[in-house]
Amino acid sequence: MNIRIGQGVDFHQLVEGRDLWLGGVKVPHIKGALGHSDADVLLHAICDALLGAAALGDIGMHFPDTSSEFKDIDSKILLKRTCALITKEGYRIGNIDASLCLQAPKIKPYVAQMQEVIAGIAGITIKDISIKATTTEKLGFVGREEGVVAYASALLFPL
Amino acid sequence: MNIRIGQGVDFHQLVEGRDLWLGGVKVPHIKGALGHSDADVLLHAICDALLGAAALGDIGMHFPDTSSEFKDIDSKILLKRTCALITKEGYRIGNIDASLCLQAPKIKPYVAQMQEVIAGIAGITIKDISIKATTTEKLGFVGREEGVVAYASALLFPL
Amino acid sequence: MNIRIGQGVDFHQLVEGRDLWLGGVKVPHIKGALGHSDADVLLHAICDALLGAAALGDIGMHFPDTSSEFKDIDSKILLKRTCALITKEGYRIGNIDASLCLQAPKIKPYVAQMQEVIAGIAGITIKDISIKATTTEKLGFVGREEGVVAYASALLFPL
Repeated sequence: MNIRIGQGVDFHQLVEGRDLWLGGVKVPHIKGALGHSDADVLLHAICDALLGAAALGDIGMHFPDTSSEFKDIDSKILLKRTCALITKEGYRIGNIDASLCLQAPKIKPYVAQMQEVIAGIAGITIKDISIKATTTEKLGFVGREEGVVAYASALLFPL
Repeated sequence: MNIRIGQGVDFHQLVEGRDLWLGGVKVPHIKGALGHSDADVLLHAICDALLGAAALGDIGMHFPDTSSEFKDIDSKILLKRTCALITKEGYRIGNIDASLCLQAPKIKPYVAQMQEVIAGIAGITIKDISIKATTTEKLGFVGREEGVVAYASALLFPL
Repeated sequence: MNIRIGQGVDFHQLVEGRDLWLGGVKVPHIKGALGHSDADVLLHAICDALLGAAALGDIGMHFPDTSSEFKDIDSKILLKRTCALITKEGYRIGNIDASLCLQAPKIKPYVAQMQEVIAGIAGITIKDISIKATTTEKLGFVGREEGVVAYASALLFPL
């Protein structure tokens, strides 16, 4: 077994009347992300990067949005289960690097907390989970604040 | 020589009257992807990830869409030629992880077949090619079913 | 310390009356990229990939677009500073692979020059910086020539 690469991308609509969960942290905002689960776009992209690196399918296969088991579920639980699958497959996480694309709010004040939450669940250090953010300079659905996108990349090493 | 990273992204319009080729498999759908070749967005993103990892340029440079040689060409041939270029450059594929972004149809029933096709061409095992899928939650041109996007990441190792 | 992965994505609007800087090269075009700095979307994505791989935050944290220090700044300076941060953290660049998404102009004639510029700043060879390009097949804000997007991936090795 060898070092492996994974990548993930996820999208959610932003709507009023929902909480905005990002990286396992509730970020105060006038809109939140719409979805079957808590719609944490960052954790979903990370789960997909980890599953993809281990060739274990995708988040929709493991945690289908048609299942009542996952209705409004805390995505930290999905990340925990994903990490267990990775371990069972014989891998450990090297590092994860992710980017959030959203026009508002600024997430910089919450990044350290997100790193702590994710590192705690994944059993890695906060230096092994990087979270970056960018606007789309008002372009597209992210720029119109209709949605949020997250990208994640990960390296896995054999246990 | 060392381990190397590559990434690719590709876009195609979805229109009526074309076949929908994804990952080397013809997926039944009311629309297909428009392009000079068979417009297989997933194989194109994978080719670009492999070419990029070896710093061999991009798919447009090797297989220009202005050349009659590549009109309506089966993208599996482009992948085969790409893999030959990688080998010639002194690399072998570690693993590939890809994501398809499309609103419809569901591609889960075809993923195993796509993995077999790609693994066969690239001379890797099906555990070394991961294909994930996500909708964009109705957002943007993918959400309006006007187009499809694919992302791919790859690691190469010295031969 | 171990090998590490990083990824970056950046967006800029295209408007008349601005220069189009891409990969450290001024590309002749009827539009240019709007931004606080010279708005070089490719160098920004590369900086973010390098910072992310080293878990050093993001480009907005190091070079805030609210600071007069970075008004109209040449992004090659930002890349130079980013590379110094990477070195200080104990890493060297393995390779970088990037994709530019823009409808026009064709950037192929400028790719070799971009590689030379970036390799020179980053202290790597031109084979360690790959730049690819794709249109979005007229889809979305890139297809309407309202904006440009760049993606970058990078591997870092311990010094």
